[in-house]
Amino acid sequence: MIVEAVKWIGGIDGCLELVDQRRLPAEFVSLQCQDVETLFEAIKTLAVRGAPAIGVAGAYGLVLALQKLSASDSVEKALEALAAAREYLASSRPTAVNLSWALDRVCKRAEEVSRASQCRGHLGRVVPKASRLRIAGGTPATRQSLQEAVLAEANAIYKEDVDMCRRIGQHGEKFIQEGAGILTHCNAGALATAGQGTALSLMFEAHKKGRRFKVYADETRPLLQGARLTAWELKQAGIDVTVICDNMAGWLMKQGKIDAVITGADRIAANGDAANKIGTYGLSILAREHGVPFYIAAPSSTFDLSIKSGAEIPIEQRAAEEVTTLRGTQIAPAGVAAYNPAFDVTEARDIAAIITEKGIIEKPTTQRITE
Amino acid sequence: MIVEAVKWIGGIDGCLELVDQRRLPAEFVSLQCQDVETLFEAIKTLAVRGAPAIGVAGAYGLVLALQKLSASDSVEKALEALAAAREYLASSRPTAVNLSWALDRVCKRAEEVSRASQCRGHLGRVVPKASRLRIAGGTPATRQSLQEAVLAEANAIYKEDVDMCRRIGQHGEKFIQEGAGILTHCNAGALATAGQGTALSLMFEAHKKGRRFKVYADETRPLLQGARLTAWELKQAGIDVTVICDNMAGWLMKQGKIDAVITGADRIAANGDAANKIGTYGLSILAREHGVPFYIAAPSSTFDLSIKSGAEIPIEQRAAEEVTTLRGTQIAPAGVAAYNPAFDVTEARDIAAIITEKGIIEKPTTQRITE
Repeated sequence: MIVEAVKWIGGIDGCLELVDQRRLPAEFVSLQCQDVETLFEAIKTLAVRGAPAIGVAGAYGLVLALQKLSASDSVEKALEALAAAREYLASSRPTAVNLSWALDRVCKRAEEVSRASQCRGHLGRVVPKASRLRIAGGTPATRQSLQEAVLAEANAIYKEDVDMCRRIGQHGEKFIQEGAGILTHCNAGALATAGQGTALSLMFEAHKKGRRFKVYADETRPLLQGARLTAWELKQAGIDVTVICDNMAGWLMKQGKIDAVITGADRIAANGDAANKIGTYGLSILAREHGVPFYIAAPSSTFDLSIKSGAEIPIEQRAAEEVTTLRGTQIAPAGVAAYNPAFDVTEARDIAAIITEKGIIEKPTTQRITE
Repeated sequence: MIVEAVKWIGGIDGCLELVDQRRLPAEFVSLQCQDVETLFEAIKTLAVRGAPAIGVAGAYGLVLALQKLSASDSVEKALEALAAAREYLASSRPTAVNLSWALDRVCKRAEEVSRASQCRGHLGRVVPKASRLRIAGGTPATRQSLQEAVLAEANAIYKEDVDMCRRIGQHGEKFIQEGAGILTHCNAGALATAGQGTALSLMFEAHKKGRRFKVYADETRPLLQGARLTAWELKQAGIDVTVICDNMAGWLMKQGKIDAVITGADRIAANGDAANKIGTYGLSILAREHGVPFYIAAPSSTFDLSIKSGAEIPIEQRAAEEVTTLRGTQIAPAGVAAYNPAFDVTEARDIAAIITEKGIIEKPTTQRITE
């Protein structure tokens, strides 16, 4: 079974069901969000995480926002409620690009629809009569039709994410051969997306084809997404998975246990340099040393062509406490300094291929990526 | 202040004082061992750890064993008590070579001394009259003189360890230059020896000379000796230390923050291949990639010339629970597989120098080591 991290239950009066990732792997518990406050808290405290999953959850959050209006509230009031919910939800994780993108996309759609019945859009911009839009069917927008349009847009974002994940898996599963040992880092799985993940999607597709292989999941300190999440979802799916400490990867390669490394990416520069969870860079060097191909699986939206190379990608520094404590337990002396970069950058020359929903870019270079 | 992990307090009626490493870094508490049972428990539960430290502690344990005899007990009875304590203490950590070595050395000395007053040594071997030994002074051995000889031998082992540590530091401190960034892995410090450690001894000596440098301590999963112990003792000594997760080391090197890697070793083959804590091998590859010299600091007793190369060194596999839990907290799904090799082997070609108490072996080869 491939877990569904984000799922809408019912119609416009429905609710959002999340896998509560804070409680994994100890417990597999669903979290039902009936209002935006609950969703805000869920995003902020990482009950739902992974850029694509957060984007989809945020989009559905706007459906929740409209449910709170009273029957007599106007379309204009509804647009105001959407704008407020957008601001509020976007602030739950300000650096997650997908979240603002999804919120903006749903709000834009709501405004388009509302113009069918109003002269003034949400932003107070006067829309010339000639360009007033009507939704399908030609009737003026009502609260009901607005709610339906918002849900439809959230569903579209959801579906695109599911399709993107599956396509990445279908393009890349050939890199996982019968009997192979695969190393992955962090969690680029179903728990990070609405679909079946990016790096892990290759594994799900290879597994579906009946191929047998063994996955080693780096635990991925400091936040242990590998041990907690990747190991859990691969186990749920019936894939042979073994957890290792991050520092064991090189020794595994030396012993010939690893045939490919497959990770996700957070941002890819125009030349193919890829930022991903801290530790990925070290793995890419170890993989080259041992002749192991290193693959990145990521949606095409991960490419940032405005950035020439990885040197320009800013690296987020996170709190020292993430390193000096572990799930609440102090593991280093009180007050000791710690260094905690959240990401590092793997060089394009060490990437055998980047697998996207649009296809595979082998030995990525600026020219190949542009094409 | 450099911490003293193992210290004898008083004369033959004294007791053994250990730093209770189970409670570090949260608390700095001494543990007084007045009997062999307390010491057995301390060794078994890692209150005292590190091969040299355990050896010294075991030697003093034999002094404790003799304290429990009644005033009327014979020298023969004392030898029997020593033999029983030796077996018992050696079983606390059966794979620690230094422990049996130290216990055997003290027992052998006790037998030598006892032959001055007895025809039959502890092992029941008949000693020819002509070779009966007398201890210094020519008087026959008494319970008192036997106890003194046992304490003297334990003190000798302690002193040799302290000297060995200091000499390693004095030979190697030149590799730590003013303003350098030094990376170390696991704990090869004062907490692992009776003296000031091996790898960390270089840092203590460089610090004593007024040199300023920055140490990055790998946390060293699964048991976190780096975060818990190395960071603690360097901080105690006033040395600038920063804790990192193991997977951050490559990225630090890439940014030019590391000028040398210095670790200890558990066993070194005749050709210079060195077994050390898991993760050391990966560091050696990353160091080579970034042009960073990689040093090993270890006593000459670490060399096992019966082993031609690292390929022959057996690697201890430890319990999966060390990986899947962390200080009592479950961090991976229940029942998931984990791989937990305790050591890996760094190749001689990637070692810039091995620093021992006898001197420095640059670019180690079988020939240079034999010399």
